Amino acid sequence: MIQLKDIKKMSALAEKWARQGKTVGFVPTMGALHEGHLSLVRTAKRENDIAVASIFVNPIQFGPKEDFSRYPRDIQGDSKKLKSAGLDVLFTTTPAEMYTEGFATYVLADEGMAGVLCGARRPGHFRGVLTVVAKLFNIVRPTVAYFGQKDFQQAALISRMAADLNFPLKVAVCPTIREKDGLAMSSRNMYLDVRERAQAVVVSRALFEGKRIIERCGECDSRKVIKKMRAIITAAPLARIDYVEIVDRATLKKSEKLEGKLAACAAVFFGKTRLIDNVLIDVPNRRRAPKKK
Amino acid sequence: MIQLKDIKKMSALAEKWARQGKTVGFVPTMGALHEGHLSLVRTAKRENDIAVASIFVNPIQFGPKEDFSRYPRDIQGDSKKLKSAGLDVLFTTTPAEMYTEGFATYVLADEGMAGVLCGARRPGHFRGVLTVVAKLFNIVRPTVAYFGQKDFQQAALISRMAADLNFPLKVAVCPTIREKDGLAMSSRNMYLDVRERAQAVVVSRALFEGKRIIERCGECDSRKVIKKMRAIITAAPLARIDYVEIVDRATLKKSEKLEGKLAACAAVFFGKTRLIDNVLIDVPNRRRAPKKK
Repeated sequence: MIQLKDIKKMSALAEKWARQGKTVGFVPTMGALHEGHLSLVRTAKRENDIAVASIFVNPIQFGPKEDFSRYPRDIQGDSKKLKSAGLDVLFTTTPAEMYTEGFATYVLADEGMAGVLCGARRPGHFRGVLTVVAKLFNIVRPTVAYFGQKDFQQAALISRMAADLNFPLKVAVCPTIREKDGLAMSSRNMYLDVRERAQAVVVSRALFEGKRIIERCGECDSRKVIKKMRAIITAAPLARIDYVEIVDRATLKKSEKLEGKLAACAAVFFGKTRLIDNVLIDVPNRRRAPKKK
Repeated sequence: MIQLKDIKKMSALAEKWARQGKTVGFVPTMGALHEGHLSLVRTAKRENDIAVASIFVNPIQFGPKEDFSRYPRDIQGDSKKLKSAGLDVLFTTTPAEMYTEGFATYVLADEGMAGVLCGARRPGHFRGVLTVVAKLFNIVRPTVAYFGQKDFQQAALISRMAADLNFPLKVAVCPTIREKDGLAMSSRNMYLDVRERAQAVVVSRALFEGKRIIERCGECDSRKVIKKMRAIITAAPLARIDYVEIVDRATLKKSEKLEGKLAACAAVFFGKTRLIDNVLIDVPNRRRAPKKK
């Protein structure tokens, strides 16, 4: 595994690969790597000639009161993990190199997609995400870029961006990797104390229960499902709900009628730590069919 | 010359060129081609293995009351001109193919650069320009993209975008091509009637006079220069000034002290037709040197 710390060097290597016709799998990260990231790297390596990952804690996607400065950083530990996962090239860079003097250009999604769910609570967050991902796409020029399903809205917006701006690449969204008790893996889980960690299991439990009562029990009233999910979460005394919603997977619009391809999404605070999670829900057609008779 | 009307075909050809290591010069246009465009095409062909031009009247860069529907379209005439200029590939596309259902992603510059000059008068215009140019960059994947100096703010914003978003290409800004009397060539000149056309010469005349009194006469009071330029323009009875400004070439900030690399820019209405023009001004160091003593 080689490590590149310079945009120009990474860019030159990307150009060489393009000329050689090599396929490049790319996993952009902010470091503090866990099994979720590593599963993306393994997939990238398996599906492409070359696997590249980036580590860059992107300042412009953090709000002024958010955890940019205390976000966990462990480049040495991360390097070892990436090497073990079979990574070929690790690209690291700095805010000073990524946002040079006079920087003035941003990529953003309209409010219908970026102003809901996490975007409604974190103004400017997705503008920061889309901008840095567009930059990284142009620097690394991947054939396929891999993102985790855990960051549901991020994955939806990046897929949308890649299509809308005609990036010559494929966006692959890979399943969320979970702890044994169901908690979605996240770099922010390390902020949790023992009691918070134990109670954090309610988030995934609530989402999977929502999925079950829609897919198996045929519930089609979103308010009932959300009420049920909220009850499961609030049963944990340390949990403070930010949002629990069921949305259309492509448009991110709230799904009232619970039809088609959906996602149940939640953001929940445990102390100062904000956890997000989601599960995909495919509403069976059989439920809607009888109405047509 | 081949003409491609399909994003996928253009994109596939671009990928082939990348693998062959061919250099690609690209000239994005809205058609209604004049000698300004053709000079860009000739330069693109001379400096690269392959010259590509696009013709696409981009709806999202026109305001609701602007001239999108009446913007001149002459694909057959344009094709002939491009063939004569040595073009290899003409890419044409449609709003329906470029902005598919659910389109939600935009590229924009911050207000310091996009909200001044033309951007102050045409809200959303440069968002539309940057978005379509980013899309075209990703579809055509040029080595060098060529733009005319005549659209000064556009060229500045696109250069900024290419650097900020790390597009793996060079932006070349080429000199404005003028009619014999000095009028900057523009597709919109054909809107002018005979009297308007005769009087339109005042725009370039004013800008070159501004350049002369700064560079040659050492004038360093921007208000005096602007007053002089406005007087030249308003001497034409059909001219109605939209703006006349002197700005820093990189930041687009108004230059009060007239130092460094500047541009004098004007937008002037003749009837319903809005013409823009600019000249580059390099303030000689000798003028500033004595102050240091």
